[in-house]
Amino acid sequence: MQKKAYDDSYALHTDLYQINMAETYWEDGIHNRRAVFDLYFRHIPFNNGYAVFAGLEKVIDFIQHFKFSESDIEYLREIGYKDDFLAYLKTITFTGNIRSVQEGELVFGNEPLIRVEAPLAEAQLVETALLNIVNYQTLIATKASRIKQAVGDQTVMEFGTRRAQEFDAAIWGTRAAYIGGCSSTSNVRAGKLFGIPVSGTHAHSLVQAYKDEYVAFHKYARRHRDCVFLVDTYDTLKSGVPTAIRVAKELGDKINFIGIRLDSGDLAYLSKKARKMLDDAGFPKAKIVASNDLDEYTILNLKAQGAKIDIWGIGTKLITAYDQPALGAVYKLAAIEDEQGNMIDTIKISGNPEKVSTPGMKKVYRIINTLNHKSEGDYITLEDENPQEASRLKMFHPVHTFISKFVTNFNAKELHHDIFTNGELVYELPSLQEIQHYAKANLDLLWEEYKRSLNPEPYPVDLSQACWSNKMENIHEVKEKVSERIKRS
Amino acid sequence: MQKKAYDDSYALHTDLYQINMAETYWEDGIHNRRAVFDLYFRHIPFNNGYAVFAGLEKVIDFIQHFKFSESDIEYLREIGYKDDFLAYLKTITFTGNIRSVQEGELVFGNEPLIRVEAPLAEAQLVETALLNIVNYQTLIATKASRIKQAVGDQTVMEFGTRRAQEFDAAIWGTRAAYIGGCSSTSNVRAGKLFGIPVSGTHAHSLVQAYKDEYVAFHKYARRHRDCVFLVDTYDTLKSGVPTAIRVAKELGDKINFIGIRLDSGDLAYLSKKARKMLDDAGFPKAKIVASNDLDEYTILNLKAQGAKIDIWGIGTKLITAYDQPALGAVYKLAAIEDEQGNMIDTIKISGNPEKVSTPGMKKVYRIINTLNHKSEGDYITLEDENPQEASRLKMFHPVHTFISKFVTNFNAKELHHDIFTNGELVYELPSLQEIQHYAKANLDLLWEEYKRSLNPEPYPVDLSQACWSNKMENIHEVKEKVSERIKRS
Repeated sequence: MQKKAYDDSYALHTDLYQINMAETYWEDGIHNRRAVFDLYFRHIPFNNGYAVFAGLEKVIDFIQHFKFSESDIEYLREIGYKDDFLAYLKTITFTGNIRSVQEGELVFGNEPLIRVEAPLAEAQLVETALLNIVNYQTLIATKASRIKQAVGDQTVMEFGTRRAQEFDAAIWGTRAAYIGGCSSTSNVRAGKLFGIPVSGTHAHSLVQAYKDEYVAFHKYARRHRDCVFLVDTYDTLKSGVPTAIRVAKELGDKINFIGIRLDSGDLAYLSKKARKMLDDAGFPKAKIVASNDLDEYTILNLKAQGAKIDIWGIGTKLITAYDQPALGAVYKLAAIEDEQGNMIDTIKISGNPEKVSTPGMKKVYRIINTLNHKSEGDYITLEDENPQEASRLKMFHPVHTFISKFVTNFNAKELHHDIFTNGELVYELPSLQEIQHYAKANLDLLWEEYKRSLNPEPYPVDLSQACWSNKMENIHEVKEKVSERIKRS
Repeated sequence: MQKKAYDDSYALHTDLYQINMAETYWEDGIHNRRAVFDLYFRHIPFNNGYAVFAGLEKVIDFIQHFKFSESDIEYLREIGYKDDFLAYLKTITFTGNIRSVQEGELVFGNEPLIRVEAPLAEAQLVETALLNIVNYQTLIATKASRIKQAVGDQTVMEFGTRRAQEFDAAIWGTRAAYIGGCSSTSNVRAGKLFGIPVSGTHAHSLVQAYKDEYVAFHKYARRHRDCVFLVDTYDTLKSGVPTAIRVAKELGDKINFIGIRLDSGDLAYLSKKARKMLDDAGFPKAKIVASNDLDEYTILNLKAQGAKIDIWGIGTKLITAYDQPALGAVYKLAAIEDEQGNMIDTIKISGNPEKVSTPGMKKVYRIINTLNHKSEGDYITLEDENPQEASRLKMFHPVHTFISKFVTNFNAKELHHDIFTNGELVYELPSLQEIQHYAKANLDLLWEEYKRSLNPEPYPVDLSQACWSNKMENIHEVKEKVSERIKRS
């Protein structure tokens, strides 16, 4: 067996370069300078009109327990780090401030979801884990929300564990899926850890074990009142559905015959035929559950063909976000303390204009029209601005600045909450049910055009005049500095 | 804060229906009947010509610790399970046999990778976790192998943690990537846990923190002898590369100037220009590291354009298997003990011929030609067959049976190893380095046409005559039984 250290902390769940940078800062004596990092993505996944933020619970847990263990330090020594730096690393906990949007919040491109303000080395060391958590969980909450929009008032069950990208994805993914609108999970551990309702009855192997559907369904029903019989082990319409009906009739009130599950074949055709068979047999309330590589696209197509499906079981395509399995959130330095203790803005320039970061300590507001209760867009300001003080707000596109509008009668709702203050947790996480309700309620703030799954209108995320001007000045300053450097060299 | 039980076991990392089926078997008194399940996938991912098996280390860990904890039982009671069944569940550990191909083995569609032979309920309860583990890790090992084939003798570094689907994917994914041919990981925790070499120097934020590349590179070099400078924070060719060269010249022997990293822009153009600048400055041995959403397709394209890249940093596209983020391995009942204690074959029929399972206890052999040391294909037999005894082996396609060939001068290498026998671990896992070497050496067994990344030839996975005939008989028997049932009802 290979050498394997005990997995006693997550502090090393980071990229090596973070530790090398922390070492550089420490060696240079600037590791405790105040730094501000913004965590944000540039593009909403799946070309959706909005994303659903998730991940904060695990971020909180990670930050609270952030500490290098003895075995972490020992490993770092083995790979060449020196004792003086390790002595410093050993002392680190997270002592900064974190502000974040809440889980279930609808979020958009280029707005800070999380703002970390902390001693430079600490802020750097937590980057990788925060991105790892938020990128995946936000991706899945968003995918689930798209699927939920496609099914409307019907029920979505998440059951992708076997295809999830390892254990954590299965449980944190199903939690995110619940936030996005799923009703239940098949993963029992996720039920235990998060209180998500669990669902599931039986698989093909039950029928195979008895080599007979009739026997298998009866055996199952002896112990389980709620019955959904899986009908496609041998032949759905010739064998499975008639057998399910026969068993349901024989058992009558002894069971709660919820319905049947289709897991293969043409779900539109089979569901319509099965619906008629169930209705004709006197089971008009029996539900038809469907599964088999479904996602929002197949759901919309099946519905367009009049499929008679009541409950949707979604596996692979949701838990892996199959059509776009990664969200590209980044974590960019926005400001840093100088020698004199003043906060100085920083910027990342790029040949690609959309990759230029927005400098400074910032806040994010949702501008809600008080007359129609719809959102006019999001508004990013510098720290000391308060858009609510204006009677009339000018919102303009941060790139195509001629696109602008004036908003009156608005409520500017700040999206960030204080999560950690000086390293102390100051936020009480809502229950998972509350988070799910919050996400659902927030969708009402959006006009329908932002919620279309195909080609939605882009939702405005605008900079305040002061924030925009500050960005332009920073760009100018860096460009000047670079040209000077080029001239001198 | 929501109610959250302590995460003290993985036994509930399963689908609810597994527990309901176990309950049905227990209630019916057949939970201890011997059952055989095969774990296999039908299609090789990425349309590759082979897959690289990974996941066994975690499977072993899962099986060894498989036990419902007190809090698991308490949760199951809360959601409605009765004490009599829970009393049984509490006693369960894994007491069966597991045979598996080894990690790093090249594997193909429709061959059992893992064979679980255990009391029915136990075999059922471990299904979901085994699939979750093997599906993801085999997917990533295969993706890494494709990428490694594209780079040839050059080095691939895995650094996708921030885009991985949660924590476990980051660490088990990078382990699988190492098996598939990566040389290092950025994830320090994976380095600690698995002994994978770790790599990484600095990010854009270091340059931003100093607001100056020259200062930042110098500061970094004060503490770190091995230097790879990231050159695209402001302007790669005008600022980054010249500054890296200047610092390298100034520091001379004080550092080991490994080279530069390009992380944006046109990598073909920039690498060629940067190569020339490095060469002209007297650094012909300095390496160019490239990253930015790379995968085997972009690598082949960049190489075709003569890009001067020496080391490839691969993130998102590898750790998420972006172009196919799930492998669809299944776990099918192949045989079960009857009342008299005889093992009876079972089969899953489907309208889709490729979804029909292969019944019976089986073995898998690789038929290696002793003259040219290349593999002729894989050969699936029933338990009691020994292909080595034949002087001439007939191999034929399991669907298109007219496609056949005779093989002489062969060595039949059995691919399964005993991992657990009567619940005891009887296998010694090779070191991760040995596994990586094994995967690499095995590629030599394959003809080039199976290793092409685009449209490879399909590698033969054939059934023995006895195995094929047995399957046909089982299909016939089930079809008869279903028609009888239909007639009677």
